[in-house]
Amino acid sequence: VKLPQGYRFAATYAGIRKRPEPDLALMVSDVEATAAGLFTQNVVRAAPVILSAQHLVKSGGRCRGIIVNAGNANCATSSMAKAARASTQAVARLLGTSSSRILVASTGVIGEPLDERKITAALPSMVERLSPEHFPACARAIMTTDTIPKTAFGELATGQGAIRTAGMAKGAGMIHPRMATMLGFLFTDAAVPAPLLQRMLRSAAGRTFNRISVDSDTSTNDTLFLLANGRSGVSLGPKTLQAFDETLRQVAEELAIAIARDGEGARKLLTIEVEGAASDRSAEQLARAIANSPLVKTALAGADPNWGRFLSAAGASGVKFDPSKVDLCLNGHLICHRGLRAEFSEPEVQKTMLGDESKLLFQIRGKGAGKARFWTCDLTADYIRINADYRT
Amino acid sequence: VKLPQGYRFAATYAGIRKRPEPDLALMVSDVEATAAGLFTQNVVRAAPVILSAQHLVKSGGRCRGIIVNAGNANCATSSMAKAARASTQAVARLLGTSSSRILVASTGVIGEPLDERKITAALPSMVERLSPEHFPACARAIMTTDTIPKTAFGELATGQGAIRTAGMAKGAGMIHPRMATMLGFLFTDAAVPAPLLQRMLRSAAGRTFNRISVDSDTSTNDTLFLLANGRSGVSLGPKTLQAFDETLRQVAEELAIAIARDGEGARKLLTIEVEGAASDRSAEQLARAIANSPLVKTALAGADPNWGRFLSAAGASGVKFDPSKVDLCLNGHLICHRGLRAEFSEPEVQKTMLGDESKLLFQIRGKGAGKARFWTCDLTADYIRINADYRT
Repeated sequence: VKLPQGYRFAATYAGIRKRPEPDLALMVSDVEATAAGLFTQNVVRAAPVILSAQHLVKSGGRCRGIIVNAGNANCATSSMAKAARASTQAVARLLGTSSSRILVASTGVIGEPLDERKITAALPSMVERLSPEHFPACARAIMTTDTIPKTAFGELATGQGAIRTAGMAKGAGMIHPRMATMLGFLFTDAAVPAPLLQRMLRSAAGRTFNRISVDSDTSTNDTLFLLANGRSGVSLGPKTLQAFDETLRQVAEELAIAIARDGEGARKLLTIEVEGAASDRSAEQLARAIANSPLVKTALAGADPNWGRFLSAAGASGVKFDPSKVDLCLNGHLICHRGLRAEFSEPEVQKTMLGDESKLLFQIRGKGAGKARFWTCDLTADYIRINADYRT
Repeated sequence: VKLPQGYRFAATYAGIRKRPEPDLALMVSDVEATAAGLFTQNVVRAAPVILSAQHLVKSGGRCRGIIVNAGNANCATSSMAKAARASTQAVARLLGTSSSRILVASTGVIGEPLDERKITAALPSMVERLSPEHFPACARAIMTTDTIPKTAFGELATGQGAIRTAGMAKGAGMIHPRMATMLGFLFTDAAVPAPLLQRMLRSAAGRTFNRISVDSDTSTNDTLFLLANGRSGVSLGPKTLQAFDETLRQVAEELAIAIARDGEGARKLLTIEVEGAASDRSAEQLARAIANSPLVKTALAGADPNWGRFLSAAGASGVKFDPSKVDLCLNGHLICHRGLRAEFSEPEVQKTMLGDESKLLFQIRGKGAGKARFWTCDLTADYIRINADYRT
């Protein structure tokens, strides 16, 4: 796997979380990159979200580095703005740029003060150790209840040479992003003007990070950044633009699916495809309702092809449809035909649900062209254990 | 406890559910009562919901009896309409009335055919045994995963004599009613014209059954009926109308709270009060978002005063508010002051959360007069166990 050119990374344990594992990540572009960002729509927003949004405006979408900590959300404390500001200022000083060129993100517990001195003290040695090879270490340092780091890579050959894109994300709980995952960082060495980059990021996220749900909670810290530093020497033309858009979507989709699969306590991934809805928007609404239903998610945990729950969840989505026009297909087996139980072997379908991936096709017969894909995970007793004990 | 006059009840085991416990309930008014009904807003509707709604229209809001089965939702099968129709016809024949005077409700698994012969065969002996004293037996027969029967009673003294009201309900899972609980049956011996009765039922449900959530799933079978047979001899006048409205609300609230408290796997009840919102509607939206948050519900299970989760859930509700104007008070302890952590003893507040009832006050400082109460329960590993194994 080759990283995009001109990016370097460093991770360390700065003592922010109790468990002594890396909790601070620094991601730097050798040259100023164009940058795009998407943030939580929660009205309760963490300081890093507020500050990063300001920096993107102030810099006109330009960025040299991103500083990320795990273990503390830096949210809902009186010192949160100060901590976020001090972190970006310290990074800016060390990189020799202005602080508006530094973006910041945090994840962890809400309402506990973040001591920025832990971050500023760790930064000088991190800057010295910056290297492309620490990309995986950063993907690990941003984890909270994630069980595995999440990275994805894409490469696009063009007449002018290759464009590489790499991404990392963390998720696990409080995941029902409406604009971004909990935290996601995408890097490309393509050259893309900032406004176009923002549009591309929004479009990619709409079909990927915005289509996953673990527990329907929307975090105060959701952040997704995309940096484009142009170091590949390739500028996107009319021809390559669409191909790059597709690469971006693929990298984002891979990360989004990894988040859903690694949901807190999850053992199984469920891909939901809706077809035949009146519009893509209503298809998404149907898929989202199915993905959010605790009864669907527990049925998946129990390997129970309880199709009535899928149908009922869709029925309560707010989208009008005729149940007698609905077919449900689970792992290739027709389990519901025109709104009624289909002839199927329950043990056989149950067996397919024991695997770690299941796929539900929700098909409305008729002329509707609306479709959507959505990803969710099963709801297990481990989700309860993790969240009832989170701080203790 | 005295029941309203002129109602009789019977329950039996008709072999609809596997576990050999009463699963069929018959509720009869000696004389034709006025009747009001509220039904699920799910577009996937069970046959009893569709048929009862038709009967209320056809009869002009008049009813002699209600037949209810547990163990089978009579939903999403090709024979569901036939089964519901046959049940009401059999009851009507035995009571000597037309089938439009019979209402029907079902609860249980979706998508399995309901054999109406089990019901029609059990009915004759049930009609013979009709008696006021079987009211509690009916409350038991309509249970599915409920752990206790739910009944409530109210009595209102008027110049003309006493009006009595009694209700029963079942809930437990798939409870996020937007207009009624899963199943609820209210009886009064007041005399109330059908259109007024419908308005009163809608108003009472809006403040009670529509303000509870167990798992945010909306059932295909939600049904709430209110019968008024006039046998108290008391007609509601301008003075008593409001007092009766309050009695009705109290009975409905008691049942609604009992449903939330007995949510699947639940050990604790959480009462959420929102004050200071721009309107009652946005207060309800805030309360609903908090009540539905799995992270709030697991924090309650773990006795964790994790106020950031309450704030974040409200922030993602879609209601705009200024977090720095929010105070949170949990069991009488201020845990969040103006959007920030308040000074409080964590062990002390934790201790209050070990009890089986907790109360959260979400207060927005300012001039907003909007308020709402909402009830939910904790989310425990038992919820997963119950729903991952429901049919096996």
